[in-house]
Amino acid sequence: MSKDVLYLKIAKSVTEQIKSDTLQLGDRLPSLRSAQKLYNVSLNTVKQAYMELESRSLVESRPKYGYFVSQTSQRKLALPSVAPMKVAEKKNTPEDLIDKVFGTIDGTDVTQFALGIPGKSFLPLAKLKKCMINVIKRKNDSGTDYEPVQGNEYLRREAAKWALVLEGKISEDDLVITSGAMNAVYTCLMAVTKPGDSVAVESPVYFGVLQAIQQLGLKVVEIPTHPICGVDLDALKKVLPTLSACCFVTNFNNPLGFQMPDENKKELVRMITEYNVPLIEDDIYGNLYFGSERPKPCKFYDEAGLVMWIGSVSKTLAPGYRVGWVAPGKFKEKVIRQKLVQTVCSPSLYPDVIADFLEHGRYDHHLRMFRNKLYANYLQIQKSVIQYFPDNTKISEPKGGFMLWLELDKKICTEDLYDEAMRQKISFAPGRMFSQYNQYQNCMRLNYALEWTDRVESDLEKLAKMVKKRI
Amino acid sequence: MSKDVLYLKIAKSVTEQIKSDTLQLGDRLPSLRSAQKLYNVSLNTVKQAYMELESRSLVESRPKYGYFVSQTSQRKLALPSVAPMKVAEKKNTPEDLIDKVFGTIDGTDVTQFALGIPGKSFLPLAKLKKCMINVIKRKNDSGTDYEPVQGNEYLRREAAKWALVLEGKISEDDLVITSGAMNAVYTCLMAVTKPGDSVAVESPVYFGVLQAIQQLGLKVVEIPTHPICGVDLDALKKVLPTLSACCFVTNFNNPLGFQMPDENKKELVRMITEYNVPLIEDDIYGNLYFGSERPKPCKFYDEAGLVMWIGSVSKTLAPGYRVGWVAPGKFKEKVIRQKLVQTVCSPSLYPDVIADFLEHGRYDHHLRMFRNKLYANYLQIQKSVIQYFPDNTKISEPKGGFMLWLELDKKICTEDLYDEAMRQKISFAPGRMFSQYNQYQNCMRLNYALEWTDRVESDLEKLAKMVKKRI
Repeated sequence: MSKDVLYLKIAKSVTEQIKSDTLQLGDRLPSLRSAQKLYNVSLNTVKQAYMELESRSLVESRPKYGYFVSQTSQRKLALPSVAPMKVAEKKNTPEDLIDKVFGTIDGTDVTQFALGIPGKSFLPLAKLKKCMINVIKRKNDSGTDYEPVQGNEYLRREAAKWALVLEGKISEDDLVITSGAMNAVYTCLMAVTKPGDSVAVESPVYFGVLQAIQQLGLKVVEIPTHPICGVDLDALKKVLPTLSACCFVTNFNNPLGFQMPDENKKELVRMITEYNVPLIEDDIYGNLYFGSERPKPCKFYDEAGLVMWIGSVSKTLAPGYRVGWVAPGKFKEKVIRQKLVQTVCSPSLYPDVIADFLEHGRYDHHLRMFRNKLYANYLQIQKSVIQYFPDNTKISEPKGGFMLWLELDKKICTEDLYDEAMRQKISFAPGRMFSQYNQYQNCMRLNYALEWTDRVESDLEKLAKMVKKRI
Repeated sequence: MSKDVLYLKIAKSVTEQIKSDTLQLGDRLPSLRSAQKLYNVSLNTVKQAYMELESRSLVESRPKYGYFVSQTSQRKLALPSVAPMKVAEKKNTPEDLIDKVFGTIDGTDVTQFALGIPGKSFLPLAKLKKCMINVIKRKNDSGTDYEPVQGNEYLRREAAKWALVLEGKISEDDLVITSGAMNAVYTCLMAVTKPGDSVAVESPVYFGVLQAIQQLGLKVVEIPTHPICGVDLDALKKVLPTLSACCFVTNFNNPLGFQMPDENKKELVRMITEYNVPLIEDDIYGNLYFGSERPKPCKFYDEAGLVMWIGSVSKTLAPGYRVGWVAPGKFKEKVIRQKLVQTVCSPSLYPDVIADFLEHGRYDHHLRMFRNKLYANYLQIQKSVIQYFPDNTKISEPKGGFMLWLELDKKICTEDLYDEAMRQKISFAPGRMFSQYNQYQNCMRLNYALEWTDRVESDLEKLAKMVKKRI
């Protein structure tokens, strides 16, 4: 019997145990080692079987705890499909569509399902105001002095302290302050690529990153991406020798929501090290986990200095401050030079305000509250989508972060739907924005980090009705 | 008699009138038309003669008033030379040197002759602090909201109002807010060029611009530049068809200090229009004139939308805020898209603070005071250079702005001198930074916008001694 069929056999056996209620909601599956003995197969076969179960949303992995029968194992809706690798097809990113969606960035009367902006009630506004006023009063220069090019030292120190997940692997000297995470991605791309080079991204890929790569005259290589495990490492391996960089969101991916398994992260780092390809790792959602602990970034496994690890406070404290940072590994000097020519240095004051908050603002407490609210919102939007959307809707299963990805009936064009929705002041991100190819037209990304009000609920119902009307 | 000799003959005749005190300090020379009749030559010949006199520092032009026997006609020191056009020579910009000089950007114990940073006592710090606290108190979002991608509307409105010099040619809708003027230059370059393209700059050229162009994979074409009239239009004309953009500082040039004559600006605009080449016009020093009025930028003469006009408050209000703007003409949408991928949007609050200052802070009054102080500083540094530096020092004649350019004895290498000076906490900008070629080693740029204290005076004397020691 071939290995392929073996893992499916195990998966089928577990599925039947779940269906027969032998394994119930929340039950822990046998550990990988126990199952290996139980079924008398290789460890890899068991892993494959469990991932298969996960991809069917029957079980979910909680890092370091094992696999559990999933809360959503009774779900009606399937996971989104993995898009095949495209290479020959005509490329064309709908810039106008992206401009249109970004045009709602400062809109206050629109239900903001489109952009990853946290609801104001989730942010510690009063505390930030207090920090700001303290900092201004303290500053003799009223903030008019230039910052050092590498960035404010106080913030670098506090950001390094907060990088607990790296277990002491970086210090303030390893960090460069940027104007938000997007600016960090852009600056890293500038530092390690030249026009015409190829950069691998997930598919679907966050449109901000897609645009940045294209605007820099780089080729985008979209790697098939699984909604639970992330980028397909076998597919990546085939193109790795041709790449100048990879640019991935490994934790609570935007838009798919997955948390790349630790094993995959290790393997990814091993692969990029073998081929000496830098990895730009956008980890801005990493602290917003629904599970038991903050997942490790690839940076943790990086010995060669190839991983450029990016963080920011735009998702958790103050989007408008545009404060982010990067630990660029061995590319630090190049990143600093790029920053110098782009903008001389970062604006002053904000770095001090954020550093002050990180030191004195009980950020851990804030994050804990925020995660609880986010998880409640996720359960809410999941429930509402199942309730209102057609039964053939496919839905991602985020393990943290802000984003839900829906795959709708093939007949739906979410780009057309967008205009209709916007007339009702409902904004979402049409799937077409997430690829350079003509795909994901029947998909949409929904931000659930907004305040969940009756209007939000009814807007989602309205959106579902528009979808149903079109099938 | 050839035309060449004619203009020299006229120049000689005027020189003798000055030497014999027939024409005295402050006297107005005959107008161009009168002189044309007087000498019975073409208008161009008279112009050439007067420019020759200007280049010898015997007369100075005051736009719209004519030519006057110069305050400095008794000067001992000559104008810096015009460097010939180089093309074949080996290129190499000393990035390490630039990093070293920029490394002093946040230094407080260094006498800052190197970077164009205004002394703190020249800035309205208390007023800015007040504006900042008002803005924060007013904001319900504590500044956490995103700004529109094009930039804060209040600031665009106020910046448009302040563009009086354009006589109503731009409105708030024509402006895009950037992270300081350097970021505007960078963004404009990204918008109108692709790697491998050629961009013309003055020579010597501000090293920030030089680095930005090179980091973007563009070719730098250094155009010979006269210390009084600016870029040599004949030399420019020869390469114009090969260019993707020009990038000039037309008013109170950095580093040479000239104010390009109106006639040259008109001709420059005519030329770029003929060849459809965008002009990135960095006009950040424009409001800091020593003469009778704010000079026009090239933008004023631009009908085709080819001039991208850049302003900021980094030189006059708050360097650390990183607030600038650009009126990108017909490239507006491209510039906005570049901004989006670089950094999503500008940081919040600062634009409101600056807009509030522009509206209520008596900016005109502040500028008037600042100009007076700057002019006093210029006279001071000029006097001190003449007093302390060797007699063969050549010195520029800025008509406004922050910068003095010195050309020293050929034996002097200012790059070596820099290290010696920095050991004594004296920073200046070595000439080598201002070209991609191996030139200007015997030059230096001095910022005189710092507070003129006894220490500054004695540091300048120290610097002069180091120079003398090396001859």
